[in-house]
Amino acid sequence: MTAPLDPTPSSSPKSSSGASEPARLDPNNTATLTIACPDRKGIVAAVSQFLLNHGANILHSDQHTTDPSGGQFFMRMEFHLDGLDLARGAFERAFESVIAQPFEMEWRVNYTAQPKRMAILVSRYDHCFLDLLWRKRRGELHIEIPLIISNHEDLRRDADMFGIPFHVVPVTKQNKAEAEAEQVRLMHEAGADFAVLARYMQILSGEFLRGFGRPVINIHHSFLPAFIGANPYRAAFNRGVKLIGATSHYVTEELDAGPIIAQDVIPVTHRETPDSLMRMGRDVERQVLARAVKAHVEDRVLVYGNKTVVF
Amino acid sequence: MTAPLDPTPSSSPKSSSGASEPARLDPNNTATLTIACPDRKGIVAAVSQFLLNHGANILHSDQHTTDPSGGQFFMRMEFHLDGLDLARGAFERAFESVIAQPFEMEWRVNYTAQPKRMAILVSRYDHCFLDLLWRKRRGELHIEIPLIISNHEDLRRDADMFGIPFHVVPVTKQNKAEAEAEQVRLMHEAGADFAVLARYMQILSGEFLRGFGRPVINIHHSFLPAFIGANPYRAAFNRGVKLIGATSHYVTEELDAGPIIAQDVIPVTHRETPDSLMRMGRDVERQVLARAVKAHVEDRVLVYGNKTVVF
Amino acid sequence: MTAPLDPTPSSSPKSSSGASEPARLDPNNTATLTIACPDRKGIVAAVSQFLLNHGANILHSDQHTTDPSGGQFFMRMEFHLDGLDLARGAFERAFESVIAQPFEMEWRVNYTAQPKRMAILVSRYDHCFLDLLWRKRRGELHIEIPLIISNHEDLRRDADMFGIPFHVVPVTKQNKAEAEAEQVRLMHEAGADFAVLARYMQILSGEFLRGFGRPVINIHHSFLPAFIGANPYRAAFNRGVKLIGATSHYVTEELDAGPIIAQDVIPVTHRETPDSLMRMGRDVERQVLARAVKAHVEDRVLVYGNKTVVF
Amino acid sequence: MTAPLDPTPSSSPKSSSGASEPARLDPNNTATLTIACPDRKGIVAAVSQFLLNHGANILHSDQHTTDPSGGQFFMRMEFHLDGLDLARGAFERAFESVIAQPFEMEWRVNYTAQPKRMAILVSRYDHCFLDLLWRKRRGELHIEIPLIISNHEDLRRDADMFGIPFHVVPVTKQNKAEAEAEQVRLMHEAGADFAVLARYMQILSGEFLRGFGRPVINIHHSFLPAFIGANPYRAAFNRGVKLIGATSHYVTEELDAGPIIAQDVIPVTHRETPDSLMRMGRDVERQVLARAVKAHVEDRVLVYGNKTVVF
Repeated sequence: MTAPLDPTPSSSPKSSSGASEPARLDPNNTATLTIACPDRKGIVAAVSQFLLNHGANILHSDQHTTDPSGGQFFMRMEFHLDGLDLARGAFERAFESVIAQPFEMEWRVNYTAQPKRMAILVSRYDHCFLDLLWRKRRGELHIEIPLIISNHEDLRRDADMFGIPFHVVPVTKQNKAEAEAEQVRLMHEAGADFAVLARYMQILSGEFLRGFGRPVINIHHSFLPAFIGANPYRAAFNRGVKLIGATSHYVTEELDAGPIIAQDVIPVTHRETPDSLMRMGRDVERQVLARAVKAHVEDRVLVYGNKTVVF
Repeated sequence: MTAPLDPTPSSSPKSSSGASEPARLDPNNTATLTIACPDRKGIVAAVSQFLLNHGANILHSDQHTTDPSGGQFFMRMEFHLDGLDLARGAFERAFESVIAQPFEMEWRVNYTAQPKRMAILVSRYDHCFLDLLWRKRRGELHIEIPLIISNHEDLRRDADMFGIPFHVVPVTKQNKAEAEAEQVRLMHEAGADFAVLARYMQILSGEFLRGFGRPVINIHHSFLPAFIGANPYRAAFNRGVKLIGATSHYVTEELDAGPIIAQDVIPVTHRETPDSLMRMGRDVERQVLARAVKAHVEDRVLVYGNKTVVF
Repeated sequence: MTAPLDPTPSSSPKSSSGASEPARLDPNNTATLTIACPDRKGIVAAVSQFLLNHGANILHSDQHTTDPSGGQFFMRMEFHLDGLDLARGAFERAFESVIAQPFEMEWRVNYTAQPKRMAILVSRYDHCFLDLLWRKRRGELHIEIPLIISNHEDLRRDADMFGIPFHVVPVTKQNKAEAEAEQVRLMHEAGADFAVLARYMQILSGEFLRGFGRPVINIHHSFLPAFIGANPYRAAFNRGVKLIGATSHYVTEELDAGPIIAQDVIPVTHRETPDSLMRMGRDVERQVLARAVKAHVEDRVLVYGNKTVVF
Repeated sequence: MTAPLDPTPSSSPKSSSGASEPARLDPNNTATLTIACPDRKGIVAAVSQFLLNHGANILHSDQHTTDPSGGQFFMRMEFHLDGLDLARGAFERAFESVIAQPFEMEWRVNYTAQPKRMAILVSRYDHCFLDLLWRKRRGELHIEIPLIISNHEDLRRDADMFGIPFHVVPVTKQNKAEAEAEQVRLMHEAGADFAVLARYMQILSGEFLRGFGRPVINIHHSFLPAFIGANPYRAAFNRGVKLIGATSHYVTEELDAGPIIAQDVIPVTHRETPDSLMRMGRDVERQVLARAVKAHVEDRVLVYGNKTVVF
């Protein structure tokens, strides 16, 4: 045990060497490994040894155990591919047989060079929608947006401005099943990896969710589980709460009950009306949705039961 | 690559198995290893393999690299000692030769069974002081408090109430050097591992810091680096800021310039006076100091240059 | 229309004349008037003219209208009594006949010289309880605490330390009605103006509330209306929320459904257990309760329907 | 003194009559009066009586005294013009002679029917700029934007999308005086009432400020007074702060030292780089700037010395 990690009181602080900005590695030559398995001894050693043996340099690593005496283990590792001694398919086959099977892992590798393809479903409110498009344009979200689906024409001009195909699929009580089938078909055709409901004002059926078969992220305009369902700002006003919020979660068949990815709130007072709550809430909604989408895109969200680990 | 980590849209959410509360391992039979070294391939593999080989079960692990292409590497691992095949001294000697020396590590192991011993220095304000005593009593801080040192008599009765030795060491311009020497002597005699300035209204000299030779944590009543020095609430009032805050940091010889551990702020309006800012600020001060002390006690704070990693 | 209220760009900022700290008026010679009535033209003019005519100097004034086209009007005015030309009783009779009756007001005057008398009901958790006692000692809460009632002996020593009478009234299923009657009797005997449930783990009956006949403030350990009832931290853990909170509200017969005075939340992650949520939540609970009690004590809370105006 | 304003414990809460949404008055037929004057008895009575006499119905009222024993008095009153018995000019002349002169007021009336005209100055960062344009489009900001001035071409397409004239005025060390003169000329020509620097990366001279002669609002990307000047995110990274922020203030000749209108911060950790701080900070910057602009537009900001009252 050598030098301390504590502050060295004898020396006055000098300009930190940590101040130098990291040199950038090629961001397109990295990958992210996510793992879930029953907790047991030796997982970290086995995975990190495997990556070391094959020349993968770990950039970031996070892990979590739901219960140290026998729970579920979760890990996320970002690593660089420069020194990798195997082709992608061979690397994945080796990991499956050497590591994943013995430890009974659910796992996945995503390559940064293949950004996720995000479908957006939206109705008339533009704030979450524009915020996502703008963050993509700014480079904050490493995604492709192959299509936008709406049940209204209103936002076509904005979609055009960003050069993204805009499909209007009107939804009525009568045509809901066909409309959903058409939506799923469009998303599959566009190769969407996941979908975001950016204030899409229709409830999705189980058929839609199973038909699409990929994650769907919603933004709900309350701090769930408070104010489930329609008109949460009105309900918040009626209850006289002193804060309002927003919740982003994966969509399941049960309304507003899926695994929560991100939540936030802002304080409000007696001066607000349902209308001003709605206006103030828009800022929270778009922040929370953007945070959830970014976490999903970067493979930081692992689902277990009806909960999430967000690394 | 088997089952997905995504939500399974086909099933409605069931009551999460994650809901079962973890069984508790003996909290006195764990240890925390903290490491700092130049980043290079293979550190995680080596450390986790070493712990595995010797029967230490990793409970939590965090790591950070300041720069993926050649920076500083930091790690904190909490592990259980139940299965350890070496005695403490032997374990540490083995780690030093097998792992620490090859990787040029600064490192340390702390055993939960030996709680850190915290000295408190305080003047007349009671809020941070009482908050720490109360958190210790509630079991929120795993520490011993062998002594309290003050330059005033005011808080003796509170110290008595908690059964902690209370030493008054008056400090004047004339006796400052002797007073500090006496403070250091008292802390060494009591076996203090670190000291907390819980609104101690004297500036510590370099002699004090070097003499004590262990970490000293301060709470400053502003969001540093704004409002360094005396009377920050008055300065905040004069500048007309819309938020006030507190900063907890390790003390170095340069006033209010040491490595920051924790900070927070609260919003304020034009209605406040310097007095009401001081009153409101007390709540932030004690929260921020408690957070910093807890992080330090749990070996979550690693210092490099004039900055901290807080796991 | 003369000089602008805007910044004067031609002059560089000079040290603000606002920097001078207000001279203090005698804080025991002020009063607070609170008013609720149907909104109509002329209320502010009438009230301010009345106070002016009788020599009361307005220190602070707040008002709120639920609906500018015919809602409810609320006002709170703090004024100084130095120049008052009427004795208290005469002043109040004059206000009632000249102002209150024509405008159909509910109203009240409270004199700072008569601090409110607060009863505390508490079970075993000490955090909210001690926080209130400290704040009172520090002068943050302008109150008297004539008695503490508990259903357990645990906190007697703390009560003694502060010199406050501590009454243990055990409550069982069998004796609940008598126990509540005894509690009400003790509070009436001590002249309590309001009561605070500082984590008192019994549900109060309507008989208690009607028998006491004065406001009762509770702290609930969730962001209501989420997680009503018992074990909200466990429920929050099970739902996987990303924030936990606390709500202080007036107690009504319907559980956790009374008018909300204050709420706050803190962010949490997947790393927390029900136990750590409980620990973290304590900090929010005591802050929120203290904020609510302070607002109540300073006559800042006006109730209408099941909501509050908090000035 | 009749019925209490406290919760009525005997009745269970009923659905609040406060739940009914206010009927809307014509938002174009209101005005806002702002006042600053030496504090003395009778101001509120005089102003509210004057408005009552002339048929103006007060919708909202806020007031503040810097010091109850002889400071500065500030008031903001929103009132409806439906019942006004005077034409605008006559109303203002009457107020000046009857109220403003006796009380030595600085004052102003703004009519909602005449939205303020906001000039935007911007360089290359688009986040604050787009945020303001969206909020205007959405109806969140009651303004007109007659022109945008930039020292770069980059954002022309966005300006076009919103149909707003976009003027490029390149600024170099050599042409700074002429460039500023041109900017002032353009703003005067467009009838701008105030200007917003939406991340405009040039320091404005005193000549500019005096030449324009109207308020200029800036967004600075730090929690002032910390990190004044260039590169605050880099400076925040180097200091190792645990929160970053943004400050919106009126521009004066002294850099980053003008009266603060709004500030906010977000927590950050050791994991951030200067780049990620910049990315995260963008969300705070645009929120804080939008809040400040909205407050200014609604006449909620009154300046005194180097500070603000924000109602």
